[in-house]
Amino acid sequence: MVSFECDYIAGAHPEIIKRLSETNLESLPGYGMDHYTASAQQKIRKVCGCPDAQVELLVGGTQTNAVVISTMLRDWEGVIAADSGHVSVHESGAIEYSGHKVLALPGKDGKIEAPALKRFLERFYSDVTHDHMVFPGMVYISYPTEPGTLYSKSELEAISEVCREYSLPLYLDGARLGYGLMSRSSDLTIRDIARLTNVFYIGGTKVGALCGEAVVFTKGNRPEHFMTSVKKRGALLAKGRLLGIQFDTLFTDDLYFRISRHAIDMAEKLKDIIREKGWEPYMDSPTNQQLILMTEKEMEALGKKVVFDRWGINDDGRTIVRLATSWSTGEEDLEVLREV
Amino acid sequence: MVSFECDYIAGAHPEIIKRLSETNLESLPGYGMDHYTASAQQKIRKVCGCPDAQVELLVGGTQTNAVVISTMLRDWEGVIAADSGHVSVHESGAIEYSGHKVLALPGKDGKIEAPALKRFLERFYSDVTHDHMVFPGMVYISYPTEPGTLYSKSELEAISEVCREYSLPLYLDGARLGYGLMSRSSDLTIRDIARLTNVFYIGGTKVGALCGEAVVFTKGNRPEHFMTSVKKRGALLAKGRLLGIQFDTLFTDDLYFRISRHAIDMAEKLKDIIREKGWEPYMDSPTNQQLILMTEKEMEALGKKVVFDRWGINDDGRTIVRLATSWSTGEEDLEVLREV
Amino acid sequence: MVSFECDYIAGAHPEIIKRLSETNLESLPGYGMDHYTASAQQKIRKVCGCPDAQVELLVGGTQTNAVVISTMLRDWEGVIAADSGHVSVHESGAIEYSGHKVLALPGKDGKIEAPALKRFLERFYSDVTHDHMVFPGMVYISYPTEPGTLYSKSELEAISEVCREYSLPLYLDGARLGYGLMSRSSDLTIRDIARLTNVFYIGGTKVGALCGEAVVFTKGNRPEHFMTSVKKRGALLAKGRLLGIQFDTLFTDDLYFRISRHAIDMAEKLKDIIREKGWEPYMDSPTNQQLILMTEKEMEALGKKVVFDRWGINDDGRTIVRLATSWSTGEEDLEVLREV
Amino acid sequence: MVSFECDYIAGAHPEIIKRLSETNLESLPGYGMDHYTASAQQKIRKVCGCPDAQVELLVGGTQTNAVVISTMLRDWEGVIAADSGHVSVHESGAIEYSGHKVLALPGKDGKIEAPALKRFLERFYSDVTHDHMVFPGMVYISYPTEPGTLYSKSELEAISEVCREYSLPLYLDGARLGYGLMSRSSDLTIRDIARLTNVFYIGGTKVGALCGEAVVFTKGNRPEHFMTSVKKRGALLAKGRLLGIQFDTLFTDDLYFRISRHAIDMAEKLKDIIREKGWEPYMDSPTNQQLILMTEKEMEALGKKVVFDRWGINDDGRTIVRLATSWSTGEEDLEVLREV
Repeated sequence: MVSFECDYIAGAHPEIIKRLSETNLESLPGYGMDHYTASAQQKIRKVCGCPDAQVELLVGGTQTNAVVISTMLRDWEGVIAADSGHVSVHESGAIEYSGHKVLALPGKDGKIEAPALKRFLERFYSDVTHDHMVFPGMVYISYPTEPGTLYSKSELEAISEVCREYSLPLYLDGARLGYGLMSRSSDLTIRDIARLTNVFYIGGTKVGALCGEAVVFTKGNRPEHFMTSVKKRGALLAKGRLLGIQFDTLFTDDLYFRISRHAIDMAEKLKDIIREKGWEPYMDSPTNQQLILMTEKEMEALGKKVVFDRWGINDDGRTIVRLATSWSTGEEDLEVLREV
Repeated sequence: MVSFECDYIAGAHPEIIKRLSETNLESLPGYGMDHYTASAQQKIRKVCGCPDAQVELLVGGTQTNAVVISTMLRDWEGVIAADSGHVSVHESGAIEYSGHKVLALPGKDGKIEAPALKRFLERFYSDVTHDHMVFPGMVYISYPTEPGTLYSKSELEAISEVCREYSLPLYLDGARLGYGLMSRSSDLTIRDIARLTNVFYIGGTKVGALCGEAVVFTKGNRPEHFMTSVKKRGALLAKGRLLGIQFDTLFTDDLYFRISRHAIDMAEKLKDIIREKGWEPYMDSPTNQQLILMTEKEMEALGKKVVFDRWGINDDGRTIVRLATSWSTGEEDLEVLREV
Repeated sequence: MVSFECDYIAGAHPEIIKRLSETNLESLPGYGMDHYTASAQQKIRKVCGCPDAQVELLVGGTQTNAVVISTMLRDWEGVIAADSGHVSVHESGAIEYSGHKVLALPGKDGKIEAPALKRFLERFYSDVTHDHMVFPGMVYISYPTEPGTLYSKSELEAISEVCREYSLPLYLDGARLGYGLMSRSSDLTIRDIARLTNVFYIGGTKVGALCGEAVVFTKGNRPEHFMTSVKKRGALLAKGRLLGIQFDTLFTDDLYFRISRHAIDMAEKLKDIIREKGWEPYMDSPTNQQLILMTEKEMEALGKKVVFDRWGINDDGRTIVRLATSWSTGEEDLEVLREV
Repeated sequence: MVSFECDYIAGAHPEIIKRLSETNLESLPGYGMDHYTASAQQKIRKVCGCPDAQVELLVGGTQTNAVVISTMLRDWEGVIAADSGHVSVHESGAIEYSGHKVLALPGKDGKIEAPALKRFLERFYSDVTHDHMVFPGMVYISYPTEPGTLYSKSELEAISEVCREYSLPLYLDGARLGYGLMSRSSDLTIRDIARLTNVFYIGGTKVGALCGEAVVFTKGNRPEHFMTSVKKRGALLAKGRLLGIQFDTLFTDDLYFRISRHAIDMAEKLKDIIREKGWEPYMDSPTNQQLILMTEKEMEALGKKVVFDRWGINDDGRTIVRLATSWSTGEEDLEVLREV
């Protein structure tokens, strides 16, 4: 059996395990005050081209979204997100748990469109009853999106421009950031993202780490007393070293980008196999996740050798199957798939 | 100037003011323990044909929705509502403030449709990732709906049936309940509503009271320690008599229904005037609120003699103007409108 | 039977009922946009000597505390209150419901002491772990306090000074403000209170109104988008006129203070009766609430003619009985008490 | 420099690092569905003598307290804890963030006393205003307590008995459980704890793991849809293997207890050194944390060779210094301390 179930089936990149092992008995202060965390923060600031950015390490994606959104929104505000966005659908209501509404905007292939965003905002402010509504206080996008699509540079610039016009912080969920940036279709760099957003996170969990997401407040705009707010949400890791060492490793010698590129190379080969097999794509994806439509019978056959994910249900009743590559996918895994 | 701005422009029905005045110096216990509240509760149980129902009096509509929904939902649940529902749009995120998501279902003329509800539930439970989502824990509908439409008995039965099948409590927001039930198009009685829902409220604020909504837990299903939960939400009125006396009056000699019927009679005459004037209806409404489309220029003319509400913006840019009648609308008000 | 159970046993001052009745059919806009509310706000600003203050009318005391505290605190902050404070004990956790801790400070006769407050703050900031704690973000006091004691001007000045030193807003809960200010022991005026606090509320429910509390943001420091935050908490009254007319009446011709003084006069007579009867005071109280210690047997006797409140339990097992006067207490009520 | 700052200065026990390394490339499902987690759960059930217990793995202590308490309390309830309890003081208000009050009970040396608990409960229920208060809904204790003291078996039995009498679940925070159980003063076993509590957690972060706490619902009383509630709180770890492998290792061949015993052995030697040095203990502690009183000057001297924790401030102004041993403390560390 090989697994293409998701991009978090393996542990950590071996280099990370090695570093965790080597540093294991070193005495370090807790709560992110250790020098590995400081080093990781410095490397991330550098790769983002943001000397004044603040970098904070958190444990997981939903946690990161909840912490960032709820500490940046003001009482009367909610967060705009695509209706298919992770915060809209797949976080068990974590944003609402913080007392804030997710203002769902109909997306297209997982993406918000700048004109639709602008229209939404214009309508909100021209509605005379808007004091009885939830004010838009932030825009959330994901890159890549949940179904694996990408914003082009011009699309992101357009969204960023609307946000600036309405003084809304733009937040980019980069749970799979590496796989997006290394996609052959991407025309964005991490510096572009840092420039065009107010805050974003660099996903570790799905890109080589055991756990961990690095939040970048790109304009020195980290909320006041952030550590206390993180603790209040049960999200402060005592042994911050676990996050610091991982991100320090990922941002040494471009490891994060190298392993992301590998996942994309594997995804391109996976697409070839999908074509060879005649499997029907649900949609075209330029990143590490490929979505295909399958009947129960086809899934039964596939399931004999391959672990995959039932990502959703298509309008015609077929299942949307997700096959994901990652930093840990090997050529031999693809060969098994080719042979099913 | 006459006002058709909304159905809460006047104080209370004169009979209520009279009763408040007569009972004013009576010594009564607080927090709804007074005999007027007990009497109101008993009369409401009787009119609903629910001897075992529990009746609780709260101050306002958004408060009532937040209290009822947040005390009935369990931690992992959200409330299903039409995307145009009051809880979805016009409560400044009061439901989310309680930590729960509003699961917006695309509505039709403000109504949820039973087949769409059923489809939503089927999809939810067949989605293998649903443990990462917000569970549907209640269905919210309004009667009349926000734009003034009505569920027919068969529509309500169908929704109630789906709710029963999925063990979901059905909650009906009756902010304008009287105007719905007295509509010439309604084939429902308050007993039908009590029978087909698990909880609903009888709106007082918009139907003759200074303030107040009467929540009916139709199946003896009031949440445990409800008074404490109400207090926790800042919603416990010290002088419960203010609510008790009002509802006792409204449910004496059918006052609630008589004044509601009057508002409907006035609305029918209003519709005649709209037709006479050639104003374009935004949609047909069988209740006390009439929505028409107007340009800025038309509104300017109307605004010289009439106070009206800008209810929303139409796709073509025109304003959706709301003209509402109520228990307090007089023939003379309609005459002013006819003459503009 | 006569009732000394609490200061909210009667309806409203007759002048209020008269005004509600007279204005009843006037068409007025909702949500506090009516001219009676504007007039009340103006009169309150004037009586407070604060031309720039913002005045907001809410329905009840717990609601007011929750709204004010939760909109003024920042995410990482809690509110300091006496351990006997209303927000600490008798609001069913309404402050915690908003996600904020009440930092209870041991009080003396219901009062916070400035030196103890200062010591608490010094300790907090000198504690190296304070980032893992709840930051003090506001100080809450009540005037009169829950057991009926009063801060002297110098005590209030000292607390205000500590608050200023630590940049903490000082919030005064004036549920019974009139009875405090009119006490023969009070050396404070409403202008002193406006000057020495950042926000306070003038209690209506217990001082002549059917419901209603007037919040005064004394330094133009009302939180942004306050109406939306109020709505979000289910606390926005549709017919704001009900509050506006009441406060406009209470602040016309000094009605608020006149009826408060009456309650104090009655309380002084009540104290005479207590002395005559040889009942044991639980503590000395200069305001409208008198606390006495009684055995079950004594309460049984008293209860035959008088409704009273079981306020708490003394260390020796006896009940702390509360007898309260109010604007509505008459000489004849006292006579009944004298005769028991 | 050697560090006695806390018990989480080192990474993980080498055996854990070894297992993480060996299993690193294995394909495993996420969210705790992997076989290592299942194995850890089984081993923990066995060691607790609770075949029907449910075991859930979470990341950190504050997170665990917030998740357990907020999913077990009902809307109208709060949690009773010692005033020095971790949830009372050092979690930045994480419990209040969930909308629930911590009902602080004056503790003695960090412990709740059964008679005081019972008195508190009796008073609560005999207070006629208790519907306006927060109901006690759970009792929280820590073992060892924050200052390092221990409940004896008879003390725990007495508390457990009071809880049973009032139908209150008893929750034990075992952040340092191993160090408590292996203390030479302890007369409790993990089976006793499982028997006498309704839920407790076995701390991993401070006892050999990189992160992780194992919650044991001892009576099959895990809240419904727990995974969704965990996700809602941002606490669901995608790579559950990280927790599963660690706890599976800790509960293989008694590793958890062996390394805990080592820490206690080191603490006993540390106590000898404290005595030798003539340092003044703040209080006697039978576990791995020793608290001593020091002036700034003494701390300056100590700080040249030893990293320590400023735990608090004594009434006389001296600092309460904490020196902690752990599984990672070596004899050579103690020698450095002896030589300062």
